Amino acid sequence: MIKLAPGINTSINKEVNYKNRGMNFENEINLSNQYYLNNDIAIIYKKPTPIKIIKTKSYNNSYKIEEAIFLAPSTTDYNGIYKGRYIDFEAKETNSITSFPLSNIHYNQLIHLERIINHGGIGFLLIRFNRLNLNYLVDFKIVKCMEKLGRKSISIETIKKDGFLIPSKYNCPIDYIKIVDKIYF
Amino acid sequence: MIKLAPGINTSINKEVNYKNRGMNFENEINLSNQYYLNNDIAIIYKKPTPIKIIKTKSYNNSYKIEEAIFLAPSTTDYNGIYKGRYIDFEAKETNSITSFPLSNIHYNQLIHLERIINHGGIGFLLIRFNRLNLNYLVDFKIVKCMEKLGRKSISIETIKKDGFLIPSKYNCPIDYIKIVDKIYF
Repeated sequence: MIKLAPGINTSINKEVNYKNRGMNFENEINLSNQYYLNNDIAIIYKKPTPIKIIKTKSYNNSYKIEEAIFLAPSTTDYNGIYKGRYIDFEAKETNSITSFPLSNIHYNQLIHLERIINHGGIGFLLIRFNRLNLNYLVDFKIVKCMEKLGRKSISIETIKKDGFLIPSKYNCPIDYIKIVDKIYF
Repeated sequence: MIKLAPGINTSINKEVNYKNRGMNFENEINLSNQYYLNNDIAIIYKKPTPIKIIKTKSYNNSYKIEEAIFLAPSTTDYNGIYKGRYIDFEAKETNSITSFPLSNIHYNQLIHLERIINHGGIGFLLIRFNRLNLNYLVDFKIVKCMEKLGRKSISIETIKKDGFLIPSKYNCPIDYIKIVDKIYF
């Protein structure tokens, strides 16, 4: 039995954001990815939560999990392809109204995003400010700069200046591909 | 509670291949991916098995899964980036010595691979013939051709002719990137 490391994303410990018709950030991103898939725009999926299965039980020619634990993620939650390019990102929410704490991102995820960029992929964060009801795309190089400057967080001013506010449209609540298209292509 | 659809990959219903020092195909691919990562060659991961969590229990400020079921995969098991390009594949084993049955691949996975190719990604199968102790890379277009011809399987002759035998090297038992490099770049 391991403890859940900080930043591990599970549906059970997530608050519901009532401002968005009861949908949380993850659900809105999944809905947007489904919109991209249905309209043949991009193929991007959330990876399943990594778990370690301890005990299973046979049931109707199949198996049921009777005991399992959550594992720390070694990569980000989302990846896929858009216009032939590899896309990789992590999505995080914060209740702060002044900054995004870098401690919200797992060390493994920072290493992973850096590798992706070095290999020619596109890597970023999607950040929701719950209490401001604003969603931003923040390129990984901004995260790297803040780290290099020894910062523990990215201020909302930096995010507003160097990040990109994500628009919303019908059936695509977090239309981040619009920003991806604008800044990486 | 759903039944496990045919072709769902779980560690519990997989035979151990004693021919390969007790390592099964999945473990050998994971080891190869780790080799690519350690040597900064490619960044390719196996996705966690998709599950639906039904019941959890609080334990030491964390959570433990007490009930969960396996879900049918909507994508392939592996994806990542190599030389800036998006890579996506499914790995399958067969005990047949004459052909690879196409029923081994989930319908969702075929649709997914087709989308990936259409969006400029690289998509293929890694196939292990357990009793022949041979591993092949088979490009997705071969699978599509066989489907179009109404075939239920790909014969070993076709695989030997149009597929690529995967070499093995120290610390990289399934060196499929060598083949990827040769045929897609």
